[in-house]
Amino acid sequence: MQMIKTNILTLSANIAAMQRIADGAGVRLRPHAKTHKCVEIARRQVAVGAVGLTVAKPAEAAVFIRAGIRSVKLCYPMIEAEAIRQVLSLAREHGAELIFVIDSALGLQVLDGIAAGFGAVVPVYLEVDVGLHRCGVAPDGPALVNLAGQAAASPNLDFLGLTAHAGHAYAATDRDAAARIAEEERLTMLAAKQRLAENGIAAREICVGSTPSIWAQRDFTGITEIKPGNYVFNDLTQLGIGVVGWDQLALTIAATVVSANDTYLIIDAGSKTLTSDLGPHGNNSITGHGRAFTLDEIPGEHPGRTITKLSEEHGWIAHDGKPLPLGTRLVIYPNHSCPVVNLTDRISVTENGTEIAQWPIDARGCS
Amino acid sequence: MQMIKTNILTLSANIAAMQRIADGAGVRLRPHAKTHKCVEIARRQVAVGAVGLTVAKPAEAAVFIRAGIRSVKLCYPMIEAEAIRQVLSLAREHGAELIFVIDSALGLQVLDGIAAGFGAVVPVYLEVDVGLHRCGVAPDGPALVNLAGQAAASPNLDFLGLTAHAGHAYAATDRDAAARIAEEERLTMLAAKQRLAENGIAAREICVGSTPSIWAQRDFTGITEIKPGNYVFNDLTQLGIGVVGWDQLALTIAATVVSANDTYLIIDAGSKTLTSDLGPHGNNSITGHGRAFTLDEIPGEHPGRTITKLSEEHGWIAHDGKPLPLGTRLVIYPNHSCPVVNLTDRISVTENGTEIAQWPIDARGCS
Repeated sequence: MQMIKTNILTLSANIAAMQRIADGAGVRLRPHAKTHKCVEIARRQVAVGAVGLTVAKPAEAAVFIRAGIRSVKLCYPMIEAEAIRQVLSLAREHGAELIFVIDSALGLQVLDGIAAGFGAVVPVYLEVDVGLHRCGVAPDGPALVNLAGQAAASPNLDFLGLTAHAGHAYAATDRDAAARIAEEERLTMLAAKQRLAENGIAAREICVGSTPSIWAQRDFTGITEIKPGNYVFNDLTQLGIGVVGWDQLALTIAATVVSANDTYLIIDAGSKTLTSDLGPHGNNSITGHGRAFTLDEIPGEHPGRTITKLSEEHGWIAHDGKPLPLGTRLVIYPNHSCPVVNLTDRISVTENGTEIAQWPIDARGCS
Repeated sequence: MQMIKTNILTLSANIAAMQRIADGAGVRLRPHAKTHKCVEIARRQVAVGAVGLTVAKPAEAAVFIRAGIRSVKLCYPMIEAEAIRQVLSLAREHGAELIFVIDSALGLQVLDGIAAGFGAVVPVYLEVDVGLHRCGVAPDGPALVNLAGQAAASPNLDFLGLTAHAGHAYAATDRDAAARIAEEERLTMLAAKQRLAENGIAAREICVGSTPSIWAQRDFTGITEIKPGNYVFNDLTQLGIGVVGWDQLALTIAATVVSANDTYLIIDAGSKTLTSDLGPHGNNSITGHGRAFTLDEIPGEHPGRTITKLSEEHGWIAHDGKPLPLGTRLVIYPNHSCPVVNLTDRISVTENGTEIAQWPIDARGCS
C-alpha cells in the first residue's frame, strides 16, 4: 500500500492563492471537492473564504453535507428521481443548501416535480457547453432559452443562472492558450446571459471554472462564481500547461526500487496507485506515468525519471544503463492528482518531510 | 457511485472451470487475489480446491491472513525488513503459512536475516523472468544458480523452487499465441530447474500463471502450481485474446445515459469507475474504454457501443447520429477487471439480474 502524501505548506499555499484570485476578482470561490474528497481539506477551503463546495455525484454531496458543509452545488446533470429525492432530503435534514444543475428537458422536469412534492424552492443552474462538448446546452441553440425560461417560470425552482466547465483548457499547450480558452468561456457565457436577457430571463449567476483556465484567467468581469478543483494539489498536467511551477505541486507518492534488470528499474507503485491516467481531457503534453525523483534530487533542477509503463502493482522506469540501487526511495509526481487521491483511503500529511497527520479521503469511491 | 456487479453464476463457473484445469493437470491452484481482493470470493476458491492464495502486497496478505486463509504466497520481491517482519509476525500469530518470493541478493539477505531472528524456517521461491522483463532473474544468467544456491544452503530458508509470471501473454493476439507463450514459459522453467539440478540444487516447485496463458495452456508437465487471478471475472482483454467468450465475463458496471449532444452520449461512469486502463501489459487489441450494451442487447449478438473517452465522472460514447434516450440504462464490460474492482468498496452480487448480496472488497487499496 504505497503512501500518497500531501505537503501541507504547499496545499495551504494553493488554497490561499486561489482564494486570493477569487477575492481579488470579486467572485465567490466554490471549490470542486472531487479532487480531494476530503472533509479536512474542505474545511480549510471554507475557513479561508470558500462559499461552499462543488461536487460531481450525489454520494459525494452526502459525505460533505453530513460533515457540516452548509452549501453544496451538485454540478452534474441529475435525471434520476430517486437519487435526487434522497440527496435533497438529506440536505434538508442537515439544513444545507443544495444547488442543482440541469442540461435537459428531462432533468428539468424531474427536478421540478420533486421540488413540487417537497414544497420547496430548489435552486438550479443551467449548464452551458462552452467547448468541451461533454454536458451542457449549446450557447446558441434553442435549448438555452427554452430550458432557462421554463426553470425561471417554475414556482418550484429558483433559476440562478448559467454554469460551465471549460475542461478543454486541459489540452492547452501553454498558459496563453489556457487564458484564451478562459476568455472564450467568459465571452460565451456573457453572450448566453445576454440572449436570455433579450428573452426576458435573468441569469443572476455566471459560474465557470477549471483549474488551468482559472489559474490563467485575466478578466473575471461578469463572472460571479468559480469552481476549480485540482488547484489544491496541482500535478504534472498543470505543470505541463505552464500554469504552475514545481513548488505548487502538493501531491506525491512514495515508492521504492524493488527490482531491476538490464532495461528497467521496477518500483512498488503501479496503476493501482498512480492510475493509468495520462492527463485529463486530451492533454498530450505528458509522456509516461509520472516523474520520479530520489530524495536528494530537486524537481525542476533535476529532470527526474519518467515512469515508462505500469502494471497493477509495479512501475517500470527505463534506466539507460544507470540503474538506482535496490531500496532507493523515490518521490513520484503524478500526471493527474484527482484519480490518484481516489485510490487511497487516507492521505499522509507532511510538513518539512515529516508526517504530521493522516486525513481520511471521506468521499473516496463516491464516483 | 456507479455499481460494479458480478454475476454469481458466471463467477462460480469461472472458479470451477479453473479448478478443473488444475485438477485435470494434477497441479495445485493458488489464485491471485489481487483481482478480486474479496474474502468471500477467496473462500469460494478455497472451498472448491484452491490450496491458498497468491497476493502482491503485504497489506493484501494481512487482510486474507486475518480472514483465515491458511496459506498465502506473497508473490512480490520484498526487500524492506520492517514490512517483511510485520507480515511474517502476523502470519505466525494466525498460524498461517506465508511464502516469500525473491529475485535479488538484497531480498535474499534481508529475508534470511529476519528468518534467523524469528528462529523459523521461511519458505521462499526464486522468481524467474520468462519474458515479461519486470521482476525475476534471467533464466540463463548467473543469479539463478547463485541465489537458488544460497537460498537452498540457508538453514533459515526452505527453498521451494521457481516461480514466474508470463504477463506478456496479455499482449497475445489470439489463443494460439497465448498457448505458445505458455509453452515457452514451461520450457524455460524446466530448463532453469535443470540448470539448478546440474548444480546440485533441487527446485521442488515450479509455479507459473497468468490468466491468458493458463486458459490457453495445453501441457502442464513439470508444473506443480498455477496462480492465475483475472479468471474469476475475465474482461474484454481476455475476450480480445480469444481465451474466453462473452458468457465467461462475470464483471459489469451499471451506468445511465445522463446527457447528449450532436456527437456524444454522456454516461455517469468515468475513469474513477472504469479506470483509464486500456488493457494490461501492452495489450493493444482493445480500442476505447469498455463496451456498453442496453439491457435488451445481447453481447456477442449485438456489437454494443465503444466508450470513446473518459473524464473522471463521465463516459463519452460517440453515437453516429443515433443517440439513446436520456435515462437509458447500460451494462458496461470493462477492459481490465482488476483495477476496476480496486475502485469499489463493495461489489453487487447478482443472480439472474437480481442483487442477492453485496460483498466487501476487503483488500481494496492495499496496493
